Amino acid sequence: MNRSLSITTKHGLLKTPFFMPIATQGAVKSLTVADLKRLGATIVLSNTYHLYLRPGEKLLNSAKGLHGFMKWDGPILTDSGGYQVFSLGAKNNNGLVKLTDDGVEFKDHLRGGKHFFTPERALEIQSAIGSDIRMVLDICSEYPCTEEKAREDMERTLAWAERSIEYKKKNDGDYLLFAIVQGGMHQSLREECARRLVEMPFDGYAIGGVSVGEPWEEARKVLDWVVPLLPENKPRYLMGVGKPEQMQEAYRKGIDMFDCVIPTREARHAKLYTTDGTTYGEINILNEKYSTDFSVINPNSKLEELQTYTKAYLRHLFIVKEPLALRLATLHNLETYLTLFSSNSS
Amino acid sequence: MNRSLSITTKHGLLKTPFFMPIATQGAVKSLTVADLKRLGATIVLSNTYHLYLRPGEKLLNSAKGLHGFMKWDGPILTDSGGYQVFSLGAKNNNGLVKLTDDGVEFKDHLRGGKHFFTPERALEIQSAIGSDIRMVLDICSEYPCTEEKAREDMERTLAWAERSIEYKKKNDGDYLLFAIVQGGMHQSLREECARRLVEMPFDGYAIGGVSVGEPWEEARKVLDWVVPLLPENKPRYLMGVGKPEQMQEAYRKGIDMFDCVIPTREARHAKLYTTDGTTYGEINILNEKYSTDFSVINPNSKLEELQTYTKAYLRHLFIVKEPLALRLATLHNLETYLTLFSSNSS
Repeated sequence: MNRSLSITTKHGLLKTPFFMPIATQGAVKSLTVADLKRLGATIVLSNTYHLYLRPGEKLLNSAKGLHGFMKWDGPILTDSGGYQVFSLGAKNNNGLVKLTDDGVEFKDHLRGGKHFFTPERALEIQSAIGSDIRMVLDICSEYPCTEEKAREDMERTLAWAERSIEYKKKNDGDYLLFAIVQGGMHQSLREECARRLVEMPFDGYAIGGVSVGEPWEEARKVLDWVVPLLPENKPRYLMGVGKPEQMQEAYRKGIDMFDCVIPTREARHAKLYTTDGTTYGEINILNEKYSTDFSVINPNSKLEELQTYTKAYLRHLFIVKEPLALRLATLHNLETYLTLFSSNSS
Repeated sequence: MNRSLSITTKHGLLKTPFFMPIATQGAVKSLTVADLKRLGATIVLSNTYHLYLRPGEKLLNSAKGLHGFMKWDGPILTDSGGYQVFSLGAKNNNGLVKLTDDGVEFKDHLRGGKHFFTPERALEIQSAIGSDIRMVLDICSEYPCTEEKAREDMERTLAWAERSIEYKKKNDGDYLLFAIVQGGMHQSLREECARRLVEMPFDGYAIGGVSVGEPWEEARKVLDWVVPLLPENKPRYLMGVGKPEQMQEAYRKGIDMFDCVIPTREARHAKLYTTDGTTYGEINILNEKYSTDFSVINPNSKLEELQTYTKAYLRHLFIVKEPLALRLATLHNLETYLTLFSSNSS
């Protein structure tokens, strides 16, 4: 199949397929932007909800946006903040966020301050961030979700998508705006949502509401329902998925863009995602058998440190809680993820 | 004065004066050995007590010592473990360690297991580590300390020094063995200790029992008493001191070698040790005034990351608890410390 698109952004040309490392709060855990370049990252993803809280729009504006602040000169994609509002915001508020047709009121997870996000506000914040690819505010249905509730979420998502297009028309529009297909695990809703979004002039289409606790078989079905309805010539982004094999399968089904917290989050838990270039594996480096494994972390790595340090040493660093452990494991996992499509895109 | 000695070790020639970054458990907090090279470190210090507990002698032996394990190919100095036995070991045991003429029994701070260190045992462990410069087991008198107790500690330190020399003679002696001058804040004891140690064939002499809570004026006196009694042609090592200006003053008083936890430990607390090449300063990067300070962390740094990232960004990283904060602050502080003597040694 070997699908590949070129995406033009203010900060350079992107070639799909690609994986986006997550710089949640303006930094990829323990890595510098030079590290990201060494790893071959072409774009990073950052989180609007987190950046809105800290450092905030005012500071981002004076820093010339997130590019100026974090010194990454390549493209940046930002989510709309919606996902965190419904997860982190709700956690802090007995599971409650106040949802209306206009927007969503929530309390933040840091100090419990009250905030109100509308589709327009989400884009305004992303404007302070200055990201190259911006996502519309959407409502991510829980899993599982009744058809009635999933339809309600979808209708609001569609109305907010419409308002986001209007906002972009009226304001400085020097960015790519992506819509998000919702609809829960309901085929008719997913198809309807995709069809109605495709009628709006978005620059790309994301599939959201997956990687929310459902088995992979369910997410696979969503791909089969939605992807055929999306335009061939516009990028398709599968949000938050997943394991290496799932991403490769999704790529074969026509997905172009990926992000996932797994490589960075699991690095904290001493889990390494490995590959020999063909198959993929997971190892827990804390396993006793690595205590005397003096083979290097990854003999095929292009990074000097992963070709220098041994598994036994990395295990020791985790056990004694040395911060270098996180750095080495993060580099390792991101390298695996960033080379997932290297044979396709070369 | 510009005192400078050459010290020949199995892992290369060292030129004094120098500062030794601390790789407590076989790693300098968040840094790789390539980072240490970039910083211009010529030697690292590691802690026998910690390495003895984890990863332990057996693993160090199979890893070809600490050099093979942590992949640092320059010289390594190890302490004897005594300091941690009396601080960490005692903390875990109601302040009690059992001290006899033979050695010291203690419970470790991890699981409370019982251990017994003798001067010979301390050198045996350092042999598994394979360090280039090894310290004798000594007794570091508390501050303040009566003359009676300080004399008792000193006599044992002297007897243990003698036994350490014997141990080295009888075993593989391919390393440099340093004695430690004790004697509390008592001039007669300090002088007697120095005189009696100098009669033994050590490769270098350290001043211990400073940086234990005393004011700098007291440590300064100890230097004035002890340094003139030490041989001109052998390296002198001031243990655990201190602030940049103190180290420079000690160098002018004839000290050659330094170590201190300040640059790495204080990096964790957002404290930066700065210099313009002449004077030294300390800043707390959490201070509100840095929130919009978009000047780079250190315009005179030879490290790209410190010339790239701004103070405002570093402050943000500390506030949101991003691990990159520790890495940048550690690099910054170690660079300040490692260039302290660059005008002398060039």
